[in-house]
Amino acid sequence: MGLKVMDSRNVVQEDVTTPDTEKTKIQWLITQDDGAKNFMMRLFEIEPGGHSPLHRHDWEHEIYVLEGEGKLLFEGEKHQMKPGYFAFVPEGGEHSFINDGTEKLRFLCLIPVK
Amino acid sequence: MGLKVMDSRNVVQEDVTTPDTEKTKIQWLITQDDGAKNFMMRLFEIEPGGHSPLHRHDWEHEIYVLEGEGKLLFEGEKHQMKPGYFAFVPEGGEHSFINDGTEKLRFLCLIPVK
Repeated sequence: MGLKVMDSRNVVQEDVTTPDTEKTKIQWLITQDDGAKNFMMRLFEIEPGGHSPLHRHDWEHEIYVLEGEGKLLFEGEKHQMKPGYFAFVPEGGEHSFINDGTEKLRFLCLIPVK
Repeated sequence: MGLKVMDSRNVVQEDVTTPDTEKTKIQWLITQDDGAKNFMMRLFEIEPGGHSPLHRHDWEHEIYVLEGEGKLLFEGEKHQMKPGYFAFVPEGGEHSFINDGTEKLRFLCLIPVK
């Protein structure tokens, strides 16, 4: 696999259709199809009033907020997220991302290759 | 290790002092010290006229440009980078990041834990 350079605006955006998800879209920017052996880069967009599923799993997230504001709910506690904020969400913790703001919440969310 | 949520503006910024580096600073946002077992998140800031070293190594980069414009030099070819652009830089390829613009170039650059 070679270099990949791309404008994220040109990557297909898909609805996240898992249960308990509202108004959330995902773009898979860098995956194993690009040669990534260790981790993958996704870009999420959550509309005001939307949220990702409240769930837990045995892999971590690394997050960086690009636009908008919202809450990271982790083990029952809410943490404010704004542009320039980042988060390490450890494996095993119950979490969800909630857009309780008035603009689109856009953030990078990277996960390991399983 | 638990959750880490933080404003990236509050993370210590260090000069990159490797040879052949100019006007480049780094922030280590998420590392093994935070419990990251698989990959680490760094934030680079390159002043106009600056560049990271032209080098190659046996691990990949995953890049996302936040602010500014510049060039990703990879195996002798230059690729324009702007906010919203991302790159998968495969292991082994000779590369450098060059700020040939007029504003600070700021980008996330993630690497695997070795």
